Amino acid sequence: MERRTVTIRDVAEVADVHPSTVSRALNSRPDGMVSAATVARIVAVAKDLGYQPNALAQGLRANRTMTVGMLIPDLTNPLFPPIVRGIEDRLGEHGYTLLIANTDNDQAKEHAILDVMRRRRVDGLIIATARLESPLLAEVMAADLPVVLVNRTADGPVLPSVAGDDHAGIGAVVRHLAELGHTRIAHLASTREVTTGLNRYQSFLSWMDTVGLEVDPELIAWCPWFTQQDGATAFRQLLDAGRRFTAVVAANDLVAMGCYDVAAERGLRIPDDLSITGFNDIPFAERFSPPLTTVRIPHYQIGVKAADLMLGSIDEPGSEVVSLRLPAELVVRGSTAVPADGPATTTSTVSPLAAASSG
Amino acid sequence: MERRTVTIRDVAEVADVHPSTVSRALNSRPDGMVSAATVARIVAVAKDLGYQPNALAQGLRANRTMTVGMLIPDLTNPLFPPIVRGIEDRLGEHGYTLLIANTDNDQAKEHAILDVMRRRRVDGLIIATARLESPLLAEVMAADLPVVLVNRTADGPVLPSVAGDDHAGIGAVVRHLAELGHTRIAHLASTREVTTGLNRYQSFLSWMDTVGLEVDPELIAWCPWFTQQDGATAFRQLLDAGRRFTAVVAANDLVAMGCYDVAAERGLRIPDDLSITGFNDIPFAERFSPPLTTVRIPHYQIGVKAADLMLGSIDEPGSEVVSLRLPAELVVRGSTAVPADGPATTTSTVSPLAAASSG
Repeated sequence: MERRTVTIRDVAEVADVHPSTVSRALNSRPDGMVSAATVARIVAVAKDLGYQPNALAQGLRANRTMTVGMLIPDLTNPLFPPIVRGIEDRLGEHGYTLLIANTDNDQAKEHAILDVMRRRRVDGLIIATARLESPLLAEVMAADLPVVLVNRTADGPVLPSVAGDDHAGIGAVVRHLAELGHTRIAHLASTREVTTGLNRYQSFLSWMDTVGLEVDPELIAWCPWFTQQDGATAFRQLLDAGRRFTAVVAANDLVAMGCYDVAAERGLRIPDDLSITGFNDIPFAERFSPPLTTVRIPHYQIGVKAADLMLGSIDEPGSEVVSLRLPAELVVRGSTAVPADGPATTTSTVSPLAAASSG
Repeated sequence: MERRTVTIRDVAEVADVHPSTVSRALNSRPDGMVSAATVARIVAVAKDLGYQPNALAQGLRANRTMTVGMLIPDLTNPLFPPIVRGIEDRLGEHGYTLLIANTDNDQAKEHAILDVMRRRRVDGLIIATARLESPLLAEVMAADLPVVLVNRTADGPVLPSVAGDDHAGIGAVVRHLAELGHTRIAHLASTREVTTGLNRYQSFLSWMDTVGLEVDPELIAWCPWFTQQDGATAFRQLLDAGRRFTAVVAANDLVAMGCYDVAAERGLRIPDDLSITGFNDIPFAERFSPPLTTVRIPHYQIGVKAADLMLGSIDEPGSEVVSLRLPAELVVRGSTAVPADGPATTTSTVSPLAAASSG
């Protein structure tokens, strides 16, 4: 079905004003004879009808709303503000505004918010809530909207994504602990439901193997989610099980903080009795007592790159699907040291690995 | 000018589909014969034209977009995520989505973003960027949009606002220090350009007077902005001036952190040599070394209340202008103690004040 070209007369009819009012309202320098509310209404109608005063020059698609929706689990998790900021900054440079909504990883809420975003006719969706078993991504793909995943990725559908290099980051942590002489290393893993949980666990196993250390399955504890409280609960269970270990690789900084709390409860000194590492380098991690050894992920840049991929998808639908992994950097602070029983003979068993690969 | 009632036929004409397609699309249980993209387009056209399938039941105004815009200075300031979260949660319950944009307190950026928000036809604006000398608020009022100020307030225009009770909060801090025996108390004030800076300074002066302590003008230092770096610079200048003092009331937690940094530089022990207080109780303030004595402001609730005021303004334009101050709570931790020279004779000069008033 062909649509005829939209004229000023069409806009005037729908907006219920005289064509000359439309002309004045859409002039780049309104003369003040039209109220701001009327200008806003006319601009909106013109946009909705696809009126293009100079289509060649502007090259605008008729039905863009110049908004991009974003689904995040929880904005008060310190991980997300810099990502959102990076996205908003880059989108803003291109005239787009960001609509945000928190989902709390709740499937019903995700579905409802997705529906709202579609009714708002967002030009694309940036999703930080991807879970491995969830109908969300299939729903999004069916909606035929440009989509970019951020922080977490997905297994099934092939979607563009931007995240930190978790594999290299966990590698740097495991090598650091092995080089200090730790051999009995525990892992406080988080949920298998999301790639950040599953991949860090898988990376822990593979890097332990690479540096020649054995993984004791009894030294793997699972946190239901990436929270301080879940970290504390899992760490208490690990300690109560009575297995010996001298270091803990926590799935993220919040989980590591749960370990700090339990260590204080049990009278364990960090790093004298126990080395602990985090992941993300959230704000103020350097101010904890002791300052936390962790992996720095460039969250702001992740946001900027996600916005770039989104802008690319909007401008050229069907362009190649790109998956970006931004580099992770080990930050050694006060929460890691040689184990209480000394480096022993382990130094010689550590493979001489070069700097973190970006695999 | 009267507008006739919009029919399904009008929607069909603008959306360029058959009236029966409109009917199917707007049915609450679409039968799958209409693509999601077409449904979205028809829903949007219906909303723009003000089509009301059951106007009495729905009571919707024709031209709502169900979006609320929010201007914040910088989402990565730990103050803002809980406020935004509170707003988003409450708006979401009512079917509204939040559009956010960072302004970095830049006037040109504010103007541009305000323009974008108006073109998006937001139903209202929540502004966390109010400055005392700025054309922004006049511009917003001219746009004839519901507006709610959050965190900061304004002096001139009468606008609804929600903020913490800064006056009571500073009062609690000053009384706490006076009760510990401090008499030489410095204030690291922040910019006079915003109410959070100016009011905390004014409150410091008035509460010092109330507890019977003298304010030494040489012990007031101004930070250009509420940042750690500005706090450090101002605190270095204060120390270099060589006046004696035993406690510092910092304008907020980030400024207090700047003091921590400089204290470490200069070999000053907190709280042995110097007591330091913050304001806001940002996440992890309890983990600093030493844990920070500060004033807790219910930021999430501030967001919820701001959303409530906004929803009220949208539903009943011209309703009474309300200004809410949510209670502030002193949280005493490890950064304050009796001064090195002991409580001296000051205890008797401190007025026996009751709990923080909410003035």
